[in-house]
Amino acid sequence: MFQEAELGHRVDKRTFDREAAPLRLALLAAQQRLREEARTSVVLVVGGVEGAGKSETVARLNAWMDPRHIETNGFRPPTDEERQRPPMWRFWRVLPPKGRIGVFFGSWYTDPIVEAVEGPRRKRARAALDGRLDDILRFERMLADEGVLVLKYWLHLSKAAQKARLEALARDPRTRWRVTRQDRDRLASYDAFVATSERALRRTSRGHAPWIIIEGTDARYRDLAVGRSLLEALEARTGREPASGRPARRRLPVGAPDVDRRTVLSALDLSSALPDGRYEAALERWQARLGTLLRDRAFRTRAAVLVFEGVDAAGKGGAIRRVTAATDMRWVKIVPVAAPSDEERARPYLWRFWRHLPPHGTVTIFDRSWYGRVLVERVEGFADPEHWERAYGEINDFEDALVRHGTVVVKLWLHISRAEQLRRFRERARTDYKQYKITAEDWRNRRKWPQYEQAVCDMVERTSTRVAPWTLVAAEDKRWARVEVVKTVVRRIEAALDGA
Amino acid sequence: MFQEAELGHRVDKRTFDREAAPLRLALLAAQQRLREEARTSVVLVVGGVEGAGKSETVARLNAWMDPRHIETNGFRPPTDEERQRPPMWRFWRVLPPKGRIGVFFGSWYTDPIVEAVEGPRRKRARAALDGRLDDILRFERMLADEGVLVLKYWLHLSKAAQKARLEALARDPRTRWRVTRQDRDRLASYDAFVATSERALRRTSRGHAPWIIIEGTDARYRDLAVGRSLLEALEARTGREPASGRPARRRLPVGAPDVDRRTVLSALDLSSALPDGRYEAALERWQARLGTLLRDRAFRTRAAVLVFEGVDAAGKGGAIRRVTAATDMRWVKIVPVAAPSDEERARPYLWRFWRHLPPHGTVTIFDRSWYGRVLVERVEGFADPEHWERAYGEINDFEDALVRHGTVVVKLWLHISRAEQLRRFRERARTDYKQYKITAEDWRNRRKWPQYEQAVCDMVERTSTRVAPWTLVAAEDKRWARVEVVKTVVRRIEAALDGA
Repeated sequence: MFQEAELGHRVDKRTFDREAAPLRLALLAAQQRLREEARTSVVLVVGGVEGAGKSETVARLNAWMDPRHIETNGFRPPTDEERQRPPMWRFWRVLPPKGRIGVFFGSWYTDPIVEAVEGPRRKRARAALDGRLDDILRFERMLADEGVLVLKYWLHLSKAAQKARLEALARDPRTRWRVTRQDRDRLASYDAFVATSERALRRTSRGHAPWIIIEGTDARYRDLAVGRSLLEALEARTGREPASGRPARRRLPVGAPDVDRRTVLSALDLSSALPDGRYEAALERWQARLGTLLRDRAFRTRAAVLVFEGVDAAGKGGAIRRVTAATDMRWVKIVPVAAPSDEERARPYLWRFWRHLPPHGTVTIFDRSWYGRVLVERVEGFADPEHWERAYGEINDFEDALVRHGTVVVKLWLHISRAEQLRRFRERARTDYKQYKITAEDWRNRRKWPQYEQAVCDMVERTSTRVAPWTLVAAEDKRWARVEVVKTVVRRIEAALDGA
Repeated sequence: MFQEAELGHRVDKRTFDREAAPLRLALLAAQQRLREEARTSVVLVVGGVEGAGKSETVARLNAWMDPRHIETNGFRPPTDEERQRPPMWRFWRVLPPKGRIGVFFGSWYTDPIVEAVEGPRRKRARAALDGRLDDILRFERMLADEGVLVLKYWLHLSKAAQKARLEALARDPRTRWRVTRQDRDRLASYDAFVATSERALRRTSRGHAPWIIIEGTDARYRDLAVGRSLLEALEARTGREPASGRPARRRLPVGAPDVDRRTVLSALDLSSALPDGRYEAALERWQARLGTLLRDRAFRTRAAVLVFEGVDAAGKGGAIRRVTAATDMRWVKIVPVAAPSDEERARPYLWRFWRHLPPHGTVTIFDRSWYGRVLVERVEGFADPEHWERAYGEINDFEDALVRHGTVVVKLWLHISRAEQLRRFRERARTDYKQYKITAEDWRNRRKWPQYEQAVCDMVERTSTRVAPWTLVAAEDKRWARVEVVKTVVRRIEAALDGA
């Protein structure tokens, strides 16, 4: 979930200066439209890890827009008056009216997350956190139903970046005051804090109240990203559709906006390769380990689901064969996912995947999967936005159910460059026995490369979770990719059995 | 929540025979339309207390409709195959396809409720139950989003009726086999079972997947009620709107259908009265007790919210004055609820009530309340159905937040007959100083008496909960009503302070 926000996004000063000016004008215009229409109020939650620049971001938004129509609410320990009412009262009392933006710097998320990390034992229980998150879900659903635009920004720092940031602040006498004792404690519990936050964000990111995760390492990147995302959301919610005269479409941003062209895909090192001499030995070694692992006594009460997705011609089939070669085919089932059958089409989308779940001691390999909905169906328009947008949450719920039952979920995205894909397509077209593998559809998909890239990045951001992370595999070199795939499967199953 | 289903609903044999025949034909026609359109599948959950006739109801539905297109799924302890998959797998595998009805006799609710009552301690925790209910909520939301019609029938018996039913079954040698050891245990834990069920139903009854509670004491009433409600839902979901050509409206039933004209309001004994000689003394006694109670040390860290609703001219104002007469006005605030202000209209509906929540040691009296949304706004069409339908859930969440914070919530509905209202209206019109109290609007509301009655019954069914029950007060005799009101307030606050 935070992968995208640990890529080291940066924007240089010149770019920032060039882009900030028009952004600011557009934000002011959108804010004015919001005010004049007086139809929607905006609840803007700013959360994130310590040192990621929450306060600076709020200051920047106030500087960029008309601060008279922004209400900024910071929350300190509750007052007497507040303590005498239910916990949500302090937030209700400052809800902005229609036409205005309420910034919640600290929010209803702060206490549940902090207490789940540092609180007394009973509050650290997962069920306790989940209960509070569900109250929040209902609250935000109600806000959205009442026409409030709910936007939640999470400013993220990698552990290394947080440490560096706090050290830099502490070194400078002018900023030392910013670093509190609490900040230092938070650094010590970074991992627990991030794991809990991930759970909170994942369960509460909905189409009507999305979390947008922004890397906070570089202030210029951060401010541009938040500003652009806010602008996009305001523009989606104000103004009228030209034809219908009805309020504009209600879709909200799915992920962080593209500010510096860095993505989880562009950050992948496609030059990774294995020299001839080492491939066979490495592959055999990992295959042997996989074979042993699946015969392990501990695996008899577990199961594994392997999801293979990737660019066309990235070599999914070959990689799958390298996995199955290591295993007894009685214990492995390959489910190729193409167009659904009549029976499948007549039932809820995930039914076709539930029916193939592995019994104990076995592995199901999905050659393409439920992610079709947020990839091909999204890009080709086979699914309405309302369908694929809610699919992220449904998929997370589905995988969560698997993992809670003890199933290991391994998700692999095989990636190649656009040029390499062209080379492989041409080779397939030239080679008799490979011609069946290349169709007009492949060429059509290829023309939509940028849309697919966007869909993949959103997918990783929304569905790469601690319990079921995505592994992106550089597949420019097939041998490298195959070893990486088998190795990933081994490591993930090993980790699961160790943890049991 | 179960008040309506403990009224002793009955249908005599003649009425049943007269009504069952056309109902059956209409159900068959609706079922055929469902099949031909093949656009929607129906998931029909049948749950309820032991002995309320779940099995008989399922048999009746199969007899009334074409059983070839109904898939009835009973659930026994999970099989080997099922245990090796996540718990929801057994339900996924039998989801009906479009055009068909799947009856779930026993369902995803069975385990969570039974374990919350009888399970090991960690499963009896409220947070554990809530966590499972939230998984269910997401599952049903997904079904509804995928176009499945989700209907949930809860067959209820009062404790006395359950006991009588089990005894009757056990006496007859032909039916003795039906009474299991488990049934007897359930009777012993009736209260815990019903309290847990209420929580489960309340949290999972949504517009897109409502619980419909039906009294199971009388088989004829029960079967007609379930049949009619199912018919209503099928007709709402099949066929097309004449004008638009779009699928029909998607509204589902809110409560049990009216089969025998018995409601919580018709069951109220309006002849209750206090003789002259006893009124003053009784009132003073309860007022004194209330005054003492509000000065109690224990009340200093609590608060109370009193909700007054009722038929026009039922005497809310007079009753409120009898409450305030007992108290120090520094500690009581009366909030008359009329049309919202500009400020209030610019914010989510409940904001205007949150802002008046009492601090510790005080009482807020709402003269009319948030229930306006499901009463006047519903009946007069000021709120769209989608708004007032979701209001039930929002109101329950709101009151739940109050109660969890330690606030006592007392909700009073003052009721008079239509004839008595007419008498009071005429008297007001005749009396100079009372003329201001009667407006054209009152006469207009009066003409919609049946619609208001329906709205009140739905409100009681959906929002009368263990933590915040409705008290219906017979107000035909004003003195009786006033004493009842003060007494109810005293008893509810006393119970809360005792429980603290």
